[in-house]
Formats: sequence, structure tokens, C-alpha cells
Amino acid sequence: MTERLAIYAEGLWALSDAKTGHGVLRYSPREVVAVVDSTEAGRRAGDVVPYTASDAPIVASVTAAAEAGATNLLIGVAPPGGVLTDAWRAALVEAMECGMTVEAGLHTVLGQDEHLVAVARANGVELRDLRWTPATPRVPRIDRRRPAGLGVVHAVGTDSAIGKMTVTLELDRAARGRGLASAFVATGQTGIAISGWGYAVDHVISDYVAGTAEMLIDEGVERGADLLFVEGQGALHHPAYSAVTLGLLHGCRPDAMVLVHQAGTTVNSEYADVAIRPLGDVARAYEQILAPIHDGAVVAVALNTRGLTDEEAAAAVADAHQATGLPAADVVRHGADTILGAVLAHLGR
Amino acid sequence: MTERLAIYAEGLWALSDAKTGHGVLRYSPREVVAVVDSTEAGRRAGDVVPYTASDAPIVASVTAAAEAGATNLLIGVAPPGGVLTDAWRAALVEAMECGMTVEAGLHTVLGQDEHLVAVARANGVELRDLRWTPATPRVPRIDRRRPAGLGVVHAVGTDSAIGKMTVTLELDRAARGRGLASAFVATGQTGIAISGWGYAVDHVISDYVAGTAEMLIDEGVERGADLLFVEGQGALHHPAYSAVTLGLLHGCRPDAMVLVHQAGTTVNSEYADVAIRPLGDVARAYEQILAPIHDGAVVAVALNTRGLTDEEAAAAVADAHQATGLPAADVVRHGADTILGAVLAHLGR
Repeated sequence: MTERLAIYAEGLWALSDAKTGHGVLRYSPREVVAVVDSTEAGRRAGDVVPYTASDAPIVASVTAAAEAGATNLLIGVAPPGGVLTDAWRAALVEAMECGMTVEAGLHTVLGQDEHLVAVARANGVELRDLRWTPATPRVPRIDRRRPAGLGVVHAVGTDSAIGKMTVTLELDRAARGRGLASAFVATGQTGIAISGWGYAVDHVISDYVAGTAEMLIDEGVERGADLLFVEGQGALHHPAYSAVTLGLLHGCRPDAMVLVHQAGTTVNSEYADVAIRPLGDVARAYEQILAPIHDGAVVAVALNTRGLTDEEAAAAVADAHQATGLPAADVVRHGADTILGAVLAHLGR
Repeated sequence: MTERLAIYAEGLWALSDAKTGHGVLRYSPREVVAVVDSTEAGRRAGDVVPYTASDAPIVASVTAAAEAGATNLLIGVAPPGGVLTDAWRAALVEAMECGMTVEAGLHTVLGQDEHLVAVARANGVELRDLRWTPATPRVPRIDRRRPAGLGVVHAVGTDSAIGKMTVTLELDRAARGRGLASAFVATGQTGIAISGWGYAVDHVISDYVAGTAEMLIDEGVERGADLLFVEGQGALHHPAYSAVTLGLLHGCRPDAMVLVHQAGTTVNSEYADVAIRPLGDVARAYEQILAPIHDGAVVAVALNTRGLTDEEAAAAVADAHQATGLPAADVVRHGADTILGAVLAHLGR
């Protein structure tokens, strides 16, 4: 049976909290037939989220999604901490009682939850956890040599949930469009849901984050790529997630970094008393913390200009260029060519 | 029955790899009756490890430790990656067959290993895992206020396994000696084995490292302390463990940091092509990466001068002072007063 996906994003479809659902809708080859969000019911998925052409209806309940033909329900929201809430638990149960397979990339492992496992068994449906981690994690190898000619590009950011995955997906797509042997390297559950491989480094025991990132580089090479776009996680100055960010950075050892920033934001999205430092300072911070391990430079700024007018977006791009001296663009609004060009020039391609 | 401890450190008792065993021998109130290391058998535990007065014999086998009266065997070695090796597994089985309780703080969870569980059950003995993590981990709270007058001091370092725990234990002991309401905050398995509370932040899922560190600060306050010495982990520039280091730093938000360095080392102990940066640069790196989250300064350098002559140690202290402009000392060789003084002065105590 062909799977038809419904994305669960109750109350949050219009917000960046629903980044998992937005990413799957934009980049996954899977068919999305409904979005569940009663606060937007009656509209189309693509009406609410820019740069997604989807005509899938937004419906008010899980049952309505099943009636719209969905065979699978994906939790499309990434909450702080990644823990399953009571409301989402109820949605998963409702979906299974409608005969749907349920999928999630939470820290709460569905397959380890006795109640959910019992409901799945009673309804003959499957529980799918997308927050994959290595079966045998390890620390990085002593031997740090890499294949000659390999280029590793990593999206780093000023905050979480601002579009680092989107930037790497767009850059990879543009690189493959130029005939390059490029691959997107998923480091989180949404990326895994889109690409079908990768590890969720934020779900790995902290001692093994860097080693897991290195395993992903190895796997990208084994898959035949010599240009890897590694999805970023969190931010170096994020009060909650900086551990994930730094382990990933030191483990993937990028040759080039693209600094991702949500235009106009000045404080952390979850911790309002933590200011975002000037872009040039943030770029230097990433370079300095990487330097003892590997030589890598921030080569461009990828702005997320969602919600701005074209004029405002152009002004934000000019400001970012002014602040850093680097090429800047919004890869969704302006296309990926400017930033891909800066990356390839830095890599000598 | 009173427990009598044997420390297992086969082939490694003289090396910093046995830091868990050394820490327990030096600082734990528990009675240590033997060390297992066939390469040093016949000597006394304290002969091999400086600044430990222990007369416990070093014996050649686990069975010999049992014959020396040991009731418990502790794996006293912290391997890279924290995984149970086949040789140690055999030692644990031998201990259980001698009727001993076995204890370890590895990533390999003894209580989840079917074979070890079966052997323990067959011999009527206990398996104790010391790598404690929170039952319900979380990200840091939005509300960042702390009790007025709380001082948080954190040991940070240029490498792993160089004595960060020892520095915090000595500073805490000296502070309590001055009548201060001080506590040592364990963040790793050895610290937990010594103090009886804490969490092993390197065994926590990476998204929760900072939140777990914050929980430890809260617990220290609940225990009545207003001066907390938080054990450090890894190093900010460590290729494998920097994720743990940064999550812990951002989560515990220290007011004062003490920079720990093994005198004379110039490269990472596990990654020989990663140079240790000059001490002043490392101190600034810690301050800069903390600054967006919290104001905290490196106020002193704690040198590990193990193996040096008194003259060499004095020269190393002078060099460290010269390089950083900060007070410097070896808290074991010279006592904790110099560094504690610098900490208290910075905190305005």
C-alpha cells in the first residue's frame, strides 16, 4: 500500500515550531494529504507556509485526516526538550485507532512507551521512531585523514529552528543541479525523515556526539559523495543546545561554514534574556572554536527573511554583508547560487 | 556487613587512565583494601600514586583481592569512550564468582547486560552502575534567577583526565575548612563514587547536558550550600568531549572558573595532532564562549605538576602566572589556599 502522510501540528502550523512538518512538506518525496491544526482548519497547507506549493487541506482533527485518506501520522512539531506531551499522546492514540501508522522524532521513544506499544498492537499498526542514533556509537578516531578532495560544508547558526536544515538542503540540491557529487547529511529527525539516512545527534549520549558526526561524514563518503552539506543543530551560544552544536562542529570538521540567521532577531527565541551577538562576532566564534581541531572558515551568511517584504529582505541582506564582509542571501527567496558560489570558491572547485 | 573495596586497574594503576581509582583512594571515605594490577603487584597502592598514603596492597588478580578481604570490586579506570572491554568483563565475572559486588561508571550499563545480570543473579551479588543520570532530564529553565549570594565555581581545562575533579575536591575541602557553606558538585562517575550524589553529564543525551548541569546547581542549593565547586569534564578544544564540556559550562553558569592544566603538555593526550593552545588563549576561549549566557571569569590556574621536581613545579607555576597574569599553584603539591583566595576575592567573599 502506498503511504499517504498527515502532518500533526495542532495550533502550531504557522510557526517555526512546526519546522519538522514544513521540512517534510517542502523537501520529502512522500505524499502529504493533510495537515492537522484546528486553528487553521479549512485553509491549504501551502497557504500558511510560504514556498510550499502544497494543496493539502488543513483539517481540524486526526480523524478528519484519516477521512482525507492519510495512512500515516507524523508529529510535525519539534518541542523544546523533545518530550511527548499529553495532547500529542492523545493524537497518536486517535491515529492508531483510525488504523494509521504513527511516526515521530522525539526524545520520547514511541517503541519504549508501554501504553503506545499496547495501542499499536491492538490496532495492528506500526510505531516509527525517526530519531536514529548509531547502534555502536564511538568517539572520533585518532586517524583524522580524509579522502583527498572531500569538501565538508556545515550550516551553523545564531539560534535554533531558524532554517539551518533548509539551507543545507537547498545548497545540496543546487550543487547536484550543477552535476556535483553532493549529498545532504541529516543530523536531526526531520532531515532523516526527508533523506532516509543520518543520525539525530541531539539524541546521542553526549560523549559520543563528535564521534557520531564523524561516522556521518564517513557514511557520506561511502555513498559516493565528495561534497557534503552537513545540517546544523542548535547554536554555539544557545543556553540549552550548545553541547549538540559544538560536538557536531568538532566531529564533522567542516572546511566551509555557512552562518544562518533569522533576519531581524536580536535575542534567543527560547531565552529572551540571551542576546544574539553581532553576526561578525558569531562567525568569528565558530571559526575560533573550530581552529584547534580543523581549519574552516565561515564563507557566507544565509539569512532567513521569512515574513519580510522583498525590500526589507534586500536591506537585511545588505546589512549582513556589511556586518561580516561576506556574501549573503536567503536561499529560499533568492536561490542558492550566491552562497553555493562562495562555498565552491572557498573549496577551490 | 561493612564494605571493603578493591579497585581494578589492570596494567594502568600508575597512569592517569586510572583516575577513577586514584580519586576514590584519595577522597572517598570508603575503605580500600586492595588494588588489582598484576604489573605493579607486590607494591602498595600509595607507592605508585603520589599524595595517597594508602597501604593497601597491589595484587595480581581479582581472586587475590577477594582473598585480601575485598567485598566489592570497582572498575577504577575510565577508558576513552567508556565501553566495557572483554578483559574487564572477565574481571567482573571473576569478582562475582568470588561473591563480590561489582561497581562501574562506564557507558556500558552493567544492569542492562544480560550476561552480567545472569552471573550476578547466579552468585547472589549486586551490580552497581555509578554513571547516574536524571530520571527526568530537561533543558534549562527560562527563569535564570539564582539565590542571592550563591557563588558557582567551575574547573575547566586544557585536556581531559588532568585533575579537574581533584581541583574542585581540594578547593571544596579548603573552603569547608574555613567554615564556608561549600559543596563539591560531582559531574562524573568518580565524583559520584566519592560524594554519593551528582550526575554523570557525559552519559546524558546531548540535548539535556545543560539542563542536567542546572539541576545539579539547584540540588547543591537545596543541600544548603551557597558556594558550589562544580567538577569539570573534558575540554573546550577536545576533539571527542567538547560537547560535554560546553553543555556543562553553559548549564552551570559559573561566576568564577579555575583553569586546570597538566604542566608541560603541549598536545592533546588522546589526539596527538591537536595542539594545546597557550594558557591565556584557552582562558579567554572559556570566558568568550560563556559570555553570551553568563558573566564569569577565569580567576586562577591550577597546575597538575605530578612527576616534576619541586623546582620544576615552581618554574611551571611561574610560567603559568607569566602567561596568564593569574595566580597559579598545584592544589595537591602546594595546597589550595592560593587558588581559593583568588576565587573568594573574585566572588567578593
